[in-house]
Amino acid sequence: MRSQHCYFPQEPDAPRPLTVTIPRRVRFEEIDPLGMVWHGRYVSYLEDGRVAFGDRYGLRYMKFKDEGLAAPIVKMHIDYKASLRFDEIMNIKTTLHWCDAMRLNFEYHITGQDGRLMATGYTVQLLTDMKGLVLLMPTAWIEDFRQKWKDGKLE
Amino acid sequence: MRSQHCYFPQEPDAPRPLTVTIPRRVRFEEIDPLGMVWHGRYVSYLEDGRVAFGDRYGLRYMKFKDEGLAAPIVKMHIDYKASLRFDEIMNIKTTLHWCDAMRLNFEYHITGQDGRLMATGYTVQLLTDMKGLVLLMPTAWIEDFRQKWKDGKLE
Amino acid sequence: MRSQHCYFPQEPDAPRPLTVTIPRRVRFEEIDPLGMVWHGRYVSYLEDGRVAFGDRYGLRYMKFKDEGLAAPIVKMHIDYKASLRFDEIMNIKTTLHWCDAMRLNFEYHITGQDGRLMATGYTVQLLTDMKGLVLLMPTAWIEDFRQKWKDGKLE
Amino acid sequence: MRSQHCYFPQEPDAPRPLTVTIPRRVRFEEIDPLGMVWHGRYVSYLEDGRVAFGDRYGLRYMKFKDEGLAAPIVKMHIDYKASLRFDEIMNIKTTLHWCDAMRLNFEYHITGQDGRLMATGYTVQLLTDMKGLVLLMPTAWIEDFRQKWKDGKLE
Repeated sequence: MRSQHCYFPQEPDAPRPLTVTIPRRVRFEEIDPLGMVWHGRYVSYLEDGRVAFGDRYGLRYMKFKDEGLAAPIVKMHIDYKASLRFDEIMNIKTTLHWCDAMRLNFEYHITGQDGRLMATGYTVQLLTDMKGLVLLMPTAWIEDFRQKWKDGKLE
Repeated sequence: MRSQHCYFPQEPDAPRPLTVTIPRRVRFEEIDPLGMVWHGRYVSYLEDGRVAFGDRYGLRYMKFKDEGLAAPIVKMHIDYKASLRFDEIMNIKTTLHWCDAMRLNFEYHITGQDGRLMATGYTVQLLTDMKGLVLLMPTAWIEDFRQKWKDGKLE
Repeated sequence: MRSQHCYFPQEPDAPRPLTVTIPRRVRFEEIDPLGMVWHGRYVSYLEDGRVAFGDRYGLRYMKFKDEGLAAPIVKMHIDYKASLRFDEIMNIKTTLHWCDAMRLNFEYHITGQDGRLMATGYTVQLLTDMKGLVLLMPTAWIEDFRQKWKDGKLE
Repeated sequence: MRSQHCYFPQEPDAPRPLTVTIPRRVRFEEIDPLGMVWHGRYVSYLEDGRVAFGDRYGLRYMKFKDEGLAAPIVKMHIDYKASLRFDEIMNIKTTLHWCDAMRLNFEYHITGQDGRLMATGYTVQLLTDMKGLVLLMPTAWIEDFRQKWKDGKLE
């Protein structure tokens, strides 16, 4: 699937975005009386995508915690294009776009069983310490992650 | 509504059970594809009942926390008798039964808009310290609560 | 609370937006391990706001259904500004903005116990028939609602 | 893991129970402020176990629907023994016990990452037609399933 639209337009010289795609099956309790996935359940789909991304690239919740960091979501947006149905196996494609500031800009594309685009969305996360103060400078761990990304060592 | 059945049979000389009843409206996202409340949502209804009970009788989560106590649920049981529907206003009747041991034995009766019994259930909670060690003796706060209950000062 | 920002900028001659505000208490199961409301729970807060709005202005789910209409959400956006805590009583202010096209443009402002702005957001709903076909023209019921709104009879 | 206890005691000549075990990872949104899985989330774990069982033995929701049948849960019971933690991979073992009457008696054993027993439980489902009337006699499909089970052809 090729998405023309991008929620986070990039500078030409920014490192290439990082992407992970996982399958996810629609659960019975996610379906509403109209036989469609209730729109609020997609938040969990985005989270599953983000968790899979973190597993792959070393950005796991527990790692953040060990580093004394949190990554609260400050913005979430979802565009619903078609309805997922019970038992359907969707694909959740999660993409992290480069950002010079200390934030995580994730973009999501959910496709249905037949490859059709069902929903897109994005989230923005700030990086904070455990008191909730926003990081202005990267910690060593984050700087290391960013350097590897720039150097093309994360693909 | 008079329920013949009781999940916690009582000694004749036990203090009378304490009861709180609250209304609760069925939410759209609680309905399954068959047009009925999904069985797992009732857990939230029991919790709403328990919270209302705690508000009335001073057994709030924050109070437990301030006392260095937790009250984890170790047993939950629900009998489903009929199906709640969207937008229906149910009544959740929550009853605490006396127990000599350090545990909270709650019983629940959920009735529909027309007074019909839709579900019954119970939960059992242990009292523990914040490390999860089970209390064997009541703390001063709990002893005080139990004494007032015995003295009929909680009705 | 006066919000400077508006997600749906209006023409000067558009009918005034309609607003309903309701209180909502944060539930235990809505809190995450960091002690804050998990970001996905806000979707339910928006829905509660929308339901209260529908109750007040006659736009209830059941009425839509009786009219052979559905109002699927095609866009949702939330900006998180501060963290709601357990047991906090928030206020959910739900505002419907006029739109010439056949859609419902709702905006939301959630304030905390102390009046502080905790989150804002919006949703866009299309109007469709039960087969999912988008309405291009208002039905009699919708036309009546819109006329009353224009005539200032809905405040 | 060998569980001494059984919620559904069996006649000696009953067909052997059928079992499916699946792994399931604890999700972030399932954790409560105390760092443990909120007790209500286990309902979803049981459902995941039941769905995996249905996939393996041909008792899927869609098959029931095609047959004009529903299988509403009329009883649910959970015993909590220890707390699952974030990101822990549990195993959900789901066992269907033989029952002469037209009902599905499922038993569940959830073990943690280290093989420790974390929770057990059971559900009882009735078989009904789409109007909610309880089946007294098996349909051809169900009779076929039961015969295969008796004949030891389902293991």
